[in-house]
Amino acid sequence: LDLAKRVLEGDRRAVARLISLIEDEAPGVEDELRSLYPHTGRAHVIGVTGAPGSGKSTLARGLTGELRRQGRKVGIIAVDPTSPFTGGAVLGDRVRMQDLTGDPGVFIRSMASRGALGGLARATADAARVLDAFGCDAVLIETVGTGQAEVDIARTAHSTVVVLVPGMGDEVQAIKAGVLEIADLFVVNKADRADAGRVVSELTLLLRSNLHPGAWVPPILKTVATAGTGVPEVVGALDRHREYLRESGELDRRLRENALRELVEAVRQQLLADLWRGLDERELDVTLASIVERHLDARSAARELVKRWKR
Amino acid sequence: LDLAKRVLEGDRRAVARLISLIEDEAPGVEDELRSLYPHTGRAHVIGVTGAPGSGKSTLARGLTGELRRQGRKVGIIAVDPTSPFTGGAVLGDRVRMQDLTGDPGVFIRSMASRGALGGLARATADAARVLDAFGCDAVLIETVGTGQAEVDIARTAHSTVVVLVPGMGDEVQAIKAGVLEIADLFVVNKADRADAGRVVSELTLLLRSNLHPGAWVPPILKTVATAGTGVPEVVGALDRHREYLRESGELDRRLRENALRELVEAVRQQLLADLWRGLDERELDVTLASIVERHLDARSAARELVKRWKR
Repeated sequence: LDLAKRVLEGDRRAVARLISLIEDEAPGVEDELRSLYPHTGRAHVIGVTGAPGSGKSTLARGLTGELRRQGRKVGIIAVDPTSPFTGGAVLGDRVRMQDLTGDPGVFIRSMASRGALGGLARATADAARVLDAFGCDAVLIETVGTGQAEVDIARTAHSTVVVLVPGMGDEVQAIKAGVLEIADLFVVNKADRADAGRVVSELTLLLRSNLHPGAWVPPILKTVATAGTGVPEVVGALDRHREYLRESGELDRRLRENALRELVEAVRQQLLADLWRGLDERELDVTLASIVERHLDARSAARELVKRWKR
Repeated sequence: LDLAKRVLEGDRRAVARLISLIEDEAPGVEDELRSLYPHTGRAHVIGVTGAPGSGKSTLARGLTGELRRQGRKVGIIAVDPTSPFTGGAVLGDRVRMQDLTGDPGVFIRSMASRGALGGLARATADAARVLDAFGCDAVLIETVGTGQAEVDIARTAHSTVVVLVPGMGDEVQAIKAGVLEIADLFVVNKADRADAGRVVSELTLLLRSNLHPGAWVPPILKTVATAGTGVPEVVGALDRHREYLRESGELDRRLRENALRELVEAVRQQLLADLWRGLDERELDVTLASIVERHLDARSAARELVKRWKR
C-alpha cells in the first residue's frame, strides 16, 4: 500500500506507476485501489468524445488551459482503443499535448487496451479514481466515441462533452447511435467553417424531438479550439452541469447506477475466477469433449459445473 | 419439446417459431435447444461478412443458388445489428433475397439485436443449430463484419468468407482490424471493376506477410456476384476448406474453442442469475449506498456478496 500512500501525498511518479499496474492488471493493485477509494469522489470527471479529426484533443487541451487559469488541478486520460483506424490520431494527439506536460498541475496519461475492451472501461475508471485521489479537481477522459466500449467509458464520467465538426458529412445523423443519450453538452468545433450553423440547427431540432420534460437540456456551444474561442464558455457550461447534477439528485442516481454496474462486473469476475480455480483441467477437458461430441449442450454442462462447485 | 420434435420432422413453421423464441429469450427455449443438440453437427456453417455495399448479400444468394443446383439444403441467417448505419442496407438485402423464398430447400431468416450484442452472437449460434437440426447441409451467416460483435458471430462459423470490393478506398487496409484473423477465404466481388487487380495484389502481399507455416492459406477469389461469375469456384473453395478443417484436426480445435467460449458464457450467466435471485432488494440498496458514499469499493462489496451467497 506504499503506492496509494504516495499518491495521496502528491507523488506524480507513484500515480504513473499505479496506472501502469492497473493497465497490466497486476496482482496487488486491488489493495492499492481499495485503500485509495475513501479518498475519491471530489473530482469532476468529464468525458470528451468525438470522431477522429473533430479536434476533441485540442478542445481538451483548451479546457485544461482554462481550468489551470482558474487554479484547478487537471488530470487527462486519453483512451486509445488500439485500433489501426485511430492509433495514428491518438499518437498525434499525444504530441499536441506536450506543451502541457511541464505544468505540475496537469497529469496526462494515455491508456491502451491490452486485453478485452471491457477491461479498458474498468481500467479507465480506476485510473480516473487514482487521479481523483491525487487531488485533481477535474479529470478529462478523452475517447473516440464510436463503439459500445467508448460509450461504456463515457458512462463513468459525470459530464460528457460530445464534439462535432462541420463538413464531415452526416455528423448529426451519426450521433444518433447511442451517443445522444450520453451527451450532456454538445460542442460544435471549428465553428468558423461555413456550415457550422447548419450543424447547430440540425442538432437543435434533434434535441427538441428527444427531450424529456424537466431534465437537463444539453447546451450546444460553438468553439474554435485552436484559437481558444468559446473554450471558457464550455468550462462554464460544465460547471453549471455539475451544479445541476448535484441539485437535481441526478448525480446520486448516476453514481448509484455506476456502482451497480461495477458491482455486477466484480461479482461476475470473482464468481468465474472462483469456479475456475476449483476446476481441474481433466474435468474441463472431459466436459468440452462431451459438448463437441454433442452428448451435452453447453448450458447443461454449465449447470452441472455450477452445481458441483457449490457443493 | 413439441417444437424441437417438429423441427426434426422438417416443419418449416416450427423452425421460424423456435428462432423467434430464441430472439426473445423466451422461457423454455433452452429445453427445446437441449433436445435438438444431439441432432446437430452435420451442417457446414459458413460466415459471409463484408462492408455494406460489398455485395455480400448478392454473393450469399449466388452461393445458395449453386448449392441448390448441387441438391444441398441451405439456411441463411442475415444478422442485423440494428444500427442506423446498416438498417437500410439489411432491409435492401432482404428484398433482394425474395426470389429464393419460394424454394422449400432454402430457409431465410434475419436476426436483429434486441438486447446486448453479446446476446446476438449467442442467438445466432442457436439459430444456426436449429437450421442444422432441420437438415440444412449449409448454413450461411451473413454479417456486416466491422465490430467486435460481428467478429464474435463469425467465430461460430466453420468457414468465413470475407467479401471485399474495389473502389471503396482502403479496403485492404480496413480488413487488418481483426477480420484478417477470421478470414478463411477472400472474395473480391465486383471484379469487373478497374482496380480489382490492385485489391488482389495488395491482399496477396498482406497474406504473405501474415502466414503461419503449415496452416491454411486463404485463397483469394474474384466474383461478379450479380452475374454469377466465379460463384461455383467459391463453393468449391468452401468445400476444400471444410475438408482441410477435418483432415488437419483444425475443425476439432475450433469446435473445442467454441465449446469453451459457450461454456464460460453459460456459467457466467447462471452464476449471476443464481446470486441475484438470492439477494433481497434492501441488501442491494445498502451495498450500493455504501459504494456511492465511498465506505466500500465495488470489488470488496462483490467479495462480501459472493461470500454470503456461498454460505
